[in-house]
Amino acid sequence: MASETIELRGHIIDSLILPKVLDQILTQGATFKIREIKIGQNRTDQSFARIEVSAPSETALSELLLRLLQHGAEIAKRVNVQLAPAPADGVFPRDFYVTTNQQTFIRIDDNEIEVRPATMDSAVAADQGKARAVKFYEVRKGDQIVIGHEGVRVVPVQRSTSHTDVFQFINRSIGADEPKAAVIRELGAELTRARQAQGKIAVVAGPSVIRTGAGEHLERLIKAKYVDRLFAGNAFAIYDIERVLFGTSLGINPDHALTGGGHENHMRATNVIRECGGIARAVAQNVLNSGIMHSCVEHGVDIVLTGSIRDEGPIPGVTTDVVEAQKIMRDKLSDITHVLLLGTVQHAMAIATMLAPTVRTVCVDIDPWAVERVIEHQPFQSLGLVTDVEPFLRELADSILSKN
Amino acid sequence: MASETIELRGHIIDSLILPKVLDQILTQGATFKIREIKIGQNRTDQSFARIEVSAPSETALSELLLRLLQHGAEIAKRVNVQLAPAPADGVFPRDFYVTTNQQTFIRIDDNEIEVRPATMDSAVAADQGKARAVKFYEVRKGDQIVIGHEGVRVVPVQRSTSHTDVFQFINRSIGADEPKAAVIRELGAELTRARQAQGKIAVVAGPSVIRTGAGEHLERLIKAKYVDRLFAGNAFAIYDIERVLFGTSLGINPDHALTGGGHENHMRATNVIRECGGIARAVAQNVLNSGIMHSCVEHGVDIVLTGSIRDEGPIPGVTTDVVEAQKIMRDKLSDITHVLLLGTVQHAMAIATMLAPTVRTVCVDIDPWAVERVIEHQPFQSLGLVTDVEPFLRELADSILSKN
Amino acid sequence: MASETIELRGHIIDSLILPKVLDQILTQGATFKIREIKIGQNRTDQSFARIEVSAPSETALSELLLRLLQHGAEIAKRVNVQLAPAPADGVFPRDFYVTTNQQTFIRIDDNEIEVRPATMDSAVAADQGKARAVKFYEVRKGDQIVIGHEGVRVVPVQRSTSHTDVFQFINRSIGADEPKAAVIRELGAELTRARQAQGKIAVVAGPSVIRTGAGEHLERLIKAKYVDRLFAGNAFAIYDIERVLFGTSLGINPDHALTGGGHENHMRATNVIRECGGIARAVAQNVLNSGIMHSCVEHGVDIVLTGSIRDEGPIPGVTTDVVEAQKIMRDKLSDITHVLLLGTVQHAMAIATMLAPTVRTVCVDIDPWAVERVIEHQPFQSLGLVTDVEPFLRELADSILSKN
Amino acid sequence: MASETIELRGHIIDSLILPKVLDQILTQGATFKIREIKIGQNRTDQSFARIEVSAPSETALSELLLRLLQHGAEIAKRVNVQLAPAPADGVFPRDFYVTTNQQTFIRIDDNEIEVRPATMDSAVAADQGKARAVKFYEVRKGDQIVIGHEGVRVVPVQRSTSHTDVFQFINRSIGADEPKAAVIRELGAELTRARQAQGKIAVVAGPSVIRTGAGEHLERLIKAKYVDRLFAGNAFAIYDIERVLFGTSLGINPDHALTGGGHENHMRATNVIRECGGIARAVAQNVLNSGIMHSCVEHGVDIVLTGSIRDEGPIPGVTTDVVEAQKIMRDKLSDITHVLLLGTVQHAMAIATMLAPTVRTVCVDIDPWAVERVIEHQPFQSLGLVTDVEPFLRELADSILSKN
Repeated sequence: MASETIELRGHIIDSLILPKVLDQILTQGATFKIREIKIGQNRTDQSFARIEVSAPSETALSELLLRLLQHGAEIAKRVNVQLAPAPADGVFPRDFYVTTNQQTFIRIDDNEIEVRPATMDSAVAADQGKARAVKFYEVRKGDQIVIGHEGVRVVPVQRSTSHTDVFQFINRSIGADEPKAAVIRELGAELTRARQAQGKIAVVAGPSVIRTGAGEHLERLIKAKYVDRLFAGNAFAIYDIERVLFGTSLGINPDHALTGGGHENHMRATNVIRECGGIARAVAQNVLNSGIMHSCVEHGVDIVLTGSIRDEGPIPGVTTDVVEAQKIMRDKLSDITHVLLLGTVQHAMAIATMLAPTVRTVCVDIDPWAVERVIEHQPFQSLGLVTDVEPFLRELADSILSKN
Repeated sequence: MASETIELRGHIIDSLILPKVLDQILTQGATFKIREIKIGQNRTDQSFARIEVSAPSETALSELLLRLLQHGAEIAKRVNVQLAPAPADGVFPRDFYVTTNQQTFIRIDDNEIEVRPATMDSAVAADQGKARAVKFYEVRKGDQIVIGHEGVRVVPVQRSTSHTDVFQFINRSIGADEPKAAVIRELGAELTRARQAQGKIAVVAGPSVIRTGAGEHLERLIKAKYVDRLFAGNAFAIYDIERVLFGTSLGINPDHALTGGGHENHMRATNVIRECGGIARAVAQNVLNSGIMHSCVEHGVDIVLTGSIRDEGPIPGVTTDVVEAQKIMRDKLSDITHVLLLGTVQHAMAIATMLAPTVRTVCVDIDPWAVERVIEHQPFQSLGLVTDVEPFLRELADSILSKN
Repeated sequence: MASETIELRGHIIDSLILPKVLDQILTQGATFKIREIKIGQNRTDQSFARIEVSAPSETALSELLLRLLQHGAEIAKRVNVQLAPAPADGVFPRDFYVTTNQQTFIRIDDNEIEVRPATMDSAVAADQGKARAVKFYEVRKGDQIVIGHEGVRVVPVQRSTSHTDVFQFINRSIGADEPKAAVIRELGAELTRARQAQGKIAVVAGPSVIRTGAGEHLERLIKAKYVDRLFAGNAFAIYDIERVLFGTSLGINPDHALTGGGHENHMRATNVIRECGGIARAVAQNVLNSGIMHSCVEHGVDIVLTGSIRDEGPIPGVTTDVVEAQKIMRDKLSDITHVLLLGTVQHAMAIATMLAPTVRTVCVDIDPWAVERVIEHQPFQSLGLVTDVEPFLRELADSILSKN
Repeated sequence: MASETIELRGHIIDSLILPKVLDQILTQGATFKIREIKIGQNRTDQSFARIEVSAPSETALSELLLRLLQHGAEIAKRVNVQLAPAPADGVFPRDFYVTTNQQTFIRIDDNEIEVRPATMDSAVAADQGKARAVKFYEVRKGDQIVIGHEGVRVVPVQRSTSHTDVFQFINRSIGADEPKAAVIRELGAELTRARQAQGKIAVVAGPSVIRTGAGEHLERLIKAKYVDRLFAGNAFAIYDIERVLFGTSLGINPDHALTGGGHENHMRATNVIRECGGIARAVAQNVLNSGIMHSCVEHGVDIVLTGSIRDEGPIPGVTTDVVEAQKIMRDKLSDITHVLLLGTVQHAMAIATMLAPTVRTVCVDIDPWAVERVIEHQPFQSLGLVTDVEPFLRELADSILSKN
């Protein structure tokens, strides 16, 4: 039987931290004694708990503590982190600490320093009083890397107690059967506040945004300066350009809507942009004079395009190497405060793992599981809507632009 | 080896009748020789084919012919139907002919008479030169019932060649990823034409119509006289009434939208209507003064409510016996020309099997399989849309009412 | 500003009662002060909290208290329930208390009495020191019915702390992407223990059990005495009988598996059973000599068949009135300890609302949302598996029968 | 009004070519006259039709003809293809002909030559009496590329008339509700025949193969030499290795099955393989001594691993550039005769577009839409199964290995 004492601080009850910790302990076959507990009497008061955890073996205890740590528990006994050198470029020492996307501190020489940025699935490198999250591709032989979990402290985002807003709910998704109009209006108000407060809004969009005819509403938001950065795949850009060049998927004519249409225009649109030398040049040459890509170029929206093994082409400007693409995406997400993930599971899942825990995240998709899987990464700051993306974007744009 | 000669008539190629027949023959392990074929040279010309079908055994041939018959093949050799008396009330003779929902004729005394109504999953009773489709509950001991399939001729609905409209497509459904605006406008135009031509429009609605906030758009259609009959379950009526009496699920307030709310109001709304003695009385007593049910009463829309084992209550006016409910539904569907099936798989599936093959049928649901399964019953007259029901109804009502 | 003091008792933290209560208070726009809190130091110790709740108005407070009550809060001030007479047969007094499926007590003349049975969506009738849950169809004019929520105390099922088993998890479902073999073995062990302890096992089965070929595995469980009662619709029974009489949907021959086959056999199987006068008679007359229905008759398994508006027939023995069907289902579920809900959303949803909170409930379906919606009614005693029903039943039967 | 005469040859009726062509003509608002038609009298006879097509404008006619061509129509007037030089490396001339994955011929100097390979979404380069399909990345400035569609002839795969097998059905998928045992046995027999006839079998596998515990069955097939090549993403390889190194997702212990487990092991497994220098080295160093990757190395199965923007790492040997990955995939698919696509939409969609039309393709996924979208690329040679991948692979391996 091995034991350790942990401590919890903050809104540990209404942010569900204490229950989750006790839940983990029982689920893993361990036991606990609550040594001390102080519950805040008002909703703004902080609480505190000191709990002795016992597990059948040292190994079981160690695994359990790692998990409790990630829920915000601290080990009462304050110790420094252990460090080991990276054995080679791109390789971490065995037993390296794996980060979450929560705010994280490490104790070195009895001082706590914050790990920056708060990036999940990284190791922590310590160097000259600084701690940084490093990915596989960043680590160099000999870098001092945190191993084990002693001396690491994680501070989960806690539930806001000051005001109830649309993002305050825990893993909240609005199902296909629920009304969305009011939530979309609230979201519009939130984006307007964000805009006024110099927030940065990113849109991550899949091809269904174009195919369902939602593109015009995204354009309205771009023109009104509600989009700072656009993340998409090669296919998204081509669908938009194809619509502009050939009118495909516009759906004005019901026959068009119903017959679909071949793949030729997709190929030809790709060819046109390749011939021009990229989207910005196609705009400059007046080959591309409307659509989402055009609006992005005209209004200075950063376009971050990445490739996939399903792409034809791709067009110039698409990052085809996935490791390189991840670096660019991380960089372009670093100052974002709000993200809209629209009709794109692959992209949305990738981006969700790159976000800081404070980024307010909205995921819209007609597939309920896609929505669930994406928003579970942002427990206190995300909102999922199971709906068609076209009416969502139409209502959001209407709601925002009627106020201006 | 057993053989029989069949004949096909009409738009047998572009209505896919000939290919389906040959497909069935090969799939069932039989063979064919095409003895004669005349293909219409223009799209309005009828075609004709005479085909000799051979199968390994008489039984196999008989089973195959039954299936070909349902695809519109006729047996070249003209014979009269065979009849046998029903052995008891509610029981058909063995080997009774099972109807489809296609136009069907039987040959008696060398005269062909049409079976009425064109109802699927029935037997055919012949009496004094008339042929009628009878359900289990209608047959009486001694009724003369068609057995086997000789002398039966089925005439499938063939594809319209005169004009292309939104209903001309074969099992056509518009997926989540496709644009729907143009199709919805076309549908609006079709309903407007239907209205002017004294057509009858039925709406079959599930609870999601209320929960998503689509109810107000259905009310607009009711007030504009675009709904002749409303089919729903007890739960639908209660959700509507609950919204009127208690404001639940209205979703004005985003907190309401997000917190859901208990089941009490559902129970209380049921109790109120039970106390009043039914919906019409609640309207008369001014207890119920808005909402869909209220609009139906005010505008003379027939309300056909049926029960399910999931219901609480139910309220007066709901038919709780399912056999009785089917009789009423069949009767209330008999003069309908257009049906909208909105967010309700159970009801939609039941109703789809009760429709004449010429009824123009639209099915809207966010679940693609629900849409597929419903529209496959109406191959030449149905349209499926995979989308949220609220934006669908909003756009449909906008499209229809802006023209008036 | 209106205030009330509530108390919570039991495993209020690890059963999530305290967090849910605080969550509700904040979500509804109210505030709280924790006046007293004692947390059990070991996992078997009970905890206690006394909380002062304040809401903006008396109405808001009353609504909030009702919800907190359902989560197990008690109002500190002990008062008797208020009663009012039912105004008519089948009608409750306004503001009647609506039950949950949790254990419930009411205080009358300063004595607490338990409401029996623990049935959700009922009112509570008090008569001569007894309290019973009554449905709409049971209430008679003048019955004394509890109104408001004062004097009502709800005791939610709390999480088991003695042993971890497959049912201990909160709304736990195993997704399509997760391994199920070990869970199915555990479930087999649980059913074996249940059998030895004189538990009663009910199976609720949908047509996909037959269509996927899972019927033989259900038969093995029936023959081994692992099924006490079978709940199904008319269609389930006919699919089983059709398979026995005509071999349809048996799928021995891959062509059969692929070609589907017509609806005739479904109609003919219905006719055969109608002619025999029911399933038991068809077995007695040796018309039906294998299959699930046959096994049920041979092994004394109660068959509870209910109708729906999609049924043809139905066969004798099917309860076609839905209110009558509910009464029978409730009665036949009253002594059940374990329920398997297999491939049938409609039935599963209906049955889930009729179960006592202690009934161990397993829901198996290939549709993840169906599973979610069913198991949310049994938060501490349910297990959902998103999988094909055929391999599930095969593995379960293998696992159970290999041990015997 | 513009007109052109087209010809159709082969099994144009039972392969649905004639109906689809007439369908397209009507749907696009054009008209037709059938000038000549000869229908084969036996099922092995070829048929012939000559049809005059008229469209409102030359542009409409041209678009329509392009589509008819892809369905196998030939333009009666035999003309040579038109060629134009590629204007730059990686850019096709405007109006380039876009290939399908059907067998295609072009007429040059009045000789027809076949385009090789039969690759969709390519252009056709003609050079010294040879015609090859070229992708964007292959074209060089000045290459002679086919433009327009004159002189191009497409020969769709026609339905086999010699024998009915599991692949003969048109876009056939077996739904969640249908029996699969017989089809899986047939598929086992087909793979056994393929093996004996020196066919090449590729498996394309997603992470759910590992997560559901299906890995051991895939290993059995690898060891029995039923897999020639394995296509997967980085995540698949890591899930397999993680299971070997840490036992995660193995699911022996039901608690493990239920608690999930963190992401750390995924990161650590990646690190181990990076440290070893790749999978083959990890096997050579005996770090990796079981699992799918190990079996592939031991039994000489080619492993083709590609990256995505969701990957961590990745491990050495993963192709991270998507254009490079496509080249490798095409190359490694060129001699494949049978493909199993298991639980992986992204990969399956990419691979489906790279297959020759004669490759027999099986797609297994629990999501019905995923299955539909994948198999629609191989209309006459594909089979979809909507089911859990674990029981599918178990039954397939049992069926194949019991015969050996």
